[in-house]
Amino acid sequence: AAQGRAGPRSGCAAMKLQGNEERGALEERNSIVDQPGRAGRFRDTLSNFEADADWLGFIGNRVLDAVDDSLHRESYLDDDNAPSAAKKRVVVLGSGWGANAVLSQLKNANCDVQVVSPRNYFLFTPMLAGAALGTLEPRSIIEPIREAHPKAQYFEAEATAIDPEAKTVTCESVVCEGVACEIQSFELPYDQLIVTVGASTNTFGVKGVKEHCLFLKQLSDAVKFREQLGYAFEQASLPGLSDAERTERLTFVIIGAGPTGVELCGELRDFVAQDVPRLYSDLVGFVRVVLLEASDKVLMAFDGDLQEAALDKLRSNAQGIAIDVRLSAGVQEVTESTISLSDGSTIKYALALWAAGI
Amino acid sequence: AAQGRAGPRSGCAAMKLQGNEERGALEERNSIVDQPGRAGRFRDTLSNFEADADWLGFIGNRVLDAVDDSLHRESYLDDDNAPSAAKKRVVVLGSGWGANAVLSQLKNANCDVQVVSPRNYFLFTPMLAGAALGTLEPRSIIEPIREAHPKAQYFEAEATAIDPEAKTVTCESVVCEGVACEIQSFELPYDQLIVTVGASTNTFGVKGVKEHCLFLKQLSDAVKFREQLGYAFEQASLPGLSDAERTERLTFVIIGAGPTGVELCGELRDFVAQDVPRLYSDLVGFVRVVLLEASDKVLMAFDGDLQEAALDKLRSNAQGIAIDVRLSAGVQEVTESTISLSDGSTIKYALALWAAGI
Repeated sequence: AAQGRAGPRSGCAAMKLQGNEERGALEERNSIVDQPGRAGRFRDTLSNFEADADWLGFIGNRVLDAVDDSLHRESYLDDDNAPSAAKKRVVVLGSGWGANAVLSQLKNANCDVQVVSPRNYFLFTPMLAGAALGTLEPRSIIEPIREAHPKAQYFEAEATAIDPEAKTVTCESVVCEGVACEIQSFELPYDQLIVTVGASTNTFGVKGVKEHCLFLKQLSDAVKFREQLGYAFEQASLPGLSDAERTERLTFVIIGAGPTGVELCGELRDFVAQDVPRLYSDLVGFVRVVLLEASDKVLMAFDGDLQEAALDKLRSNAQGIAIDVRLSAGVQEVTESTISLSDGSTIKYALALWAAGI
Repeated sequence: AAQGRAGPRSGCAAMKLQGNEERGALEERNSIVDQPGRAGRFRDTLSNFEADADWLGFIGNRVLDAVDDSLHRESYLDDDNAPSAAKKRVVVLGSGWGANAVLSQLKNANCDVQVVSPRNYFLFTPMLAGAALGTLEPRSIIEPIREAHPKAQYFEAEATAIDPEAKTVTCESVVCEGVACEIQSFELPYDQLIVTVGASTNTFGVKGVKEHCLFLKQLSDAVKFREQLGYAFEQASLPGLSDAERTERLTFVIIGAGPTGVELCGELRDFVAQDVPRLYSDLVGFVRVVLLEASDKVLMAFDGDLQEAALDKLRSNAQGIAIDVRLSAGVQEVTESTISLSDGSTIKYALALWAAGI
């Protein structure tokens, strides 16, 4: 939920651990560590080891503390002249906010750093909404790990098992569709293991969300939203449709009024106000943007003034389109074309984006 | 084969038909009309009608002649003040070079223009090689039909049948994967029908090409090549591979030494010279680019001096990597990991791009 507050590139900017004051600031930023990432088989493996204190694997808020402690205990940072044989092997799992912060810390350390992630770039998640609407190119909100951290060795793979006794991570290259491409398994030995694989989106068990909603967590989500938005307008442009059908094809529902949902609404509104009249002038009157929020306020984590200002802005007709914000509107079920709400009402939709549980 | 000669945006620049001299120039440019496009069920339908002179459907070189004739015969261009009821309905099938040239001609004409194409943008094909290597963003080499030709009405669909008696085209919306998206069928009546659906890539019946080669005709081809190129380097970066395995994973074969193949080799060489040392410094020595050409020269359609200069440049080691150009090297068969040549030799490859038969 903190992603709206992060300044550009704060995640990959070099951050030094020099004093308690700065470390405090780091820890605050660190609340965004568990945002992106990829859960999979590894998550199951991980839960088996979570209580084990023999190896330094910490998720989310514990990552930087752990690294900080280990760096100071082992004096990696100050040991620039140690012989190569003495170099510790640090393996970092993940390439999101946590991994980038850690790698920035390690850049002058006298250790061998290896990064394992199925994604070879850092993704600046707060700008996903812009990428989803075409305000930004997807490529402009990522930074290749190799470019950001040239001293680290990167492997495009995911960790499938950790052996804390032998101090090894088993990895598998990620599935690819290339010609003659095959899954390859390998083991990495480590002295220190840093786990920053992040969290996955919580659908709170609401039926149909996984099957029918779009998300906004990975770059591919933004690309998909943009593609589907285009389809929706093209579909609504076809001849022979009734007004009701056009409205249905142009009803976009955002579920969750946290920073992600609110930001996406803003981007959508800009798109409708600036681009739709130019490209789809016949369709301007048919577009509906609905923002659903289970609680009774938008931007729950922020203060009251900001919440009110955001709500006023969303509901205002200033740009020729008001967002239909519905508070205390819990989603009960999502089907291929409808969303059922807790008050018994139903919305027919074209695209539904799940921005809750991030 | 003429795409290398086309200047930027010549296809969508407004071209006036004012005199024979200019018309001659137009007809020359028109040799690129049949490049992009999409063949499908419609192609079969079309062949049934091709001999029928009742309707104005012409492919490739005949398109602009036909439009030109019809415009002059019917005086669309000069009849700006005719009442709306008298407006002729012109339906254009396609959104490539031919369609754009035609639509530019029609922009001041007093007729209702409708465009039907599964692609809602014009694609500047000569820059596909740049997009394939990341020199350009894919989005920068397209122009939305609606933006280029705001007076024309566009439908994202493909034509499935033409009724020359009733003067109607049957269309179906293109398949999409959106939520609640369905194929929709509709009919468009026309007074003039202009067919610019272009040609599809010729694989000359070589076994395995369709299954295993990448192409470079649509925007999605460029995106796919770039993605697969990334996979290849990531695969080759994994630990535990032999030198031979790394070389195999980084062997890129371009089949066909026309403008497309030669340009792609140039882009690949730039990538290897400029980006690989920075991002994959351990892999520089393993990259191989092979250019296969069935005839005994590169750039067949150009003059001898240019052919020689191109061949020298390709084979030179100036940027630290020479392209392995093999002339008189006909491809017999492509399998998942090998290419068999007419001289009996075999190449193990990672990516193969079919740039012949365009």
